[in-house]
Amino acid sequence: MKALVLSSGGIDSTTALCEAVEKYGKDNVISLSVFYGQKHTKEIISARKVAEYYGVEHIETDLTNMFVYSSSSLLSSSKEEIPKEEYAEQLKTTGGDSVSTYVPFRNGLFLSAAAAIAISKDCDVLYYGAHADDAAGNAYPDCSEEFNEAIGRAIYLGSGKKVKVYAPYVKCNKAEVVKTGLEKGAPYHLTWSCYEGGEKPCGKCATCIDRQKAFSLNGAKDPALEE
Amino acid sequence: MKALVLSSGGIDSTTALCEAVEKYGKDNVISLSVFYGQKHTKEIISARKVAEYYGVEHIETDLTNMFVYSSSSLLSSSKEEIPKEEYAEQLKTTGGDSVSTYVPFRNGLFLSAAAAIAISKDCDVLYYGAHADDAAGNAYPDCSEEFNEAIGRAIYLGSGKKVKVYAPYVKCNKAEVVKTGLEKGAPYHLTWSCYEGGEKPCGKCATCIDRQKAFSLNGAKDPALEE
Repeated sequence: MKALVLSSGGIDSTTALCEAVEKYGKDNVISLSVFYGQKHTKEIISARKVAEYYGVEHIETDLTNMFVYSSSSLLSSSKEEIPKEEYAEQLKTTGGDSVSTYVPFRNGLFLSAAAAIAISKDCDVLYYGAHADDAAGNAYPDCSEEFNEAIGRAIYLGSGKKVKVYAPYVKCNKAEVVKTGLEKGAPYHLTWSCYEGGEKPCGKCATCIDRQKAFSLNGAKDPALEE
Repeated sequence: MKALVLSSGGIDSTTALCEAVEKYGKDNVISLSVFYGQKHTKEIISARKVAEYYGVEHIETDLTNMFVYSSSSLLSSSKEEIPKEEYAEQLKTTGGDSVSTYVPFRNGLFLSAAAAIAISKDCDVLYYGAHADDAAGNAYPDCSEEFNEAIGRAIYLGSGKKVKVYAPYVKCNKAEVVKTGLEKGAPYHLTWSCYEGGEKPCGKCATCIDRQKAFSLNGAKDPALEE
């Protein structure tokens, strides 16, 4: 059995990678990171470091061109500012729509690209770090449990029943993900979550807020704030 | 309502484009062609001509990098020869597996890329030309009806219920597709299906055989063979 893990360099996918290495052994795990035109490359650098930490094969690819028509505030091509408030606040003004940092069908596209690579590299399972907090209130519709089931079925069938998708945290909140990672010793000191590409995490964007909350609910300090 | 049509430059997607233009009007249709490392560019040139013929917006993009690890015989990176026999013959030796011209999860990946673009371009519906002949015997598992349903659901949910997938020929054989296109005057003289990139279609690869059969069952001549 071999696993391909979508690794963004953040908390959730690093925890997923940690679990995959524990289960399949480092020689049977491939880490895949996708650049897609973000405003910075800090996440990719983190993903690279995490793969090095575990000694797994690491693949980087680029899907920027698929988002050239998007106005997502996460993209360098967008002039929109990244909101400095938590998702729950942002969702009050979207009218049920996704948040401005939603990148159109990103998870679906990344999983499909990962499926193509997984088939070619003889991987049986595809890990990704979607969790329930991101799906809440439709902030990121491609993080929900029902989306995960549908894309999992599409990839299983479309790959000729060769590749299964596994989202270990799809029913968990971020604090539960961090709890798992802390127990298993995931290298959170190497990760990057902040939407901005500053020297230190900004502490104000939704993902910074969520991350800090998740550590604090576990009575732990975020190592990214310490260095 | 606006439609995005995955256009390969072949018979099936040209018929789909023809139907979309008829239904939505040319100003509400976008044609999307994806280069993915094929052994030639004749299909893309055909897709461009078909879009010009209808006067619709045409987008070309490139996903070659997603298939660099694949050994599919359709790719220029592969040393494998394209088989010169019909799918039914090929399937006798694959042991239930897909044929050698299967490009891993190609339809899933193309539809996911198309979904990302469709959301950005405010399209509500995504057309693609999968049909039952290609799915038969698991030749191309990502052309089956059940795959179509699953990817359709994934794209609908993951797009925040904005984009629906429509595969008008998923229950039809290729002869029925050609029947529709002939009735509607689809510009088949501009299309290209052959897996080889010769001056004329080779007439021996599986897609040439299928195409000729589909025209012949309609008592029609393939215009691609006439020029």
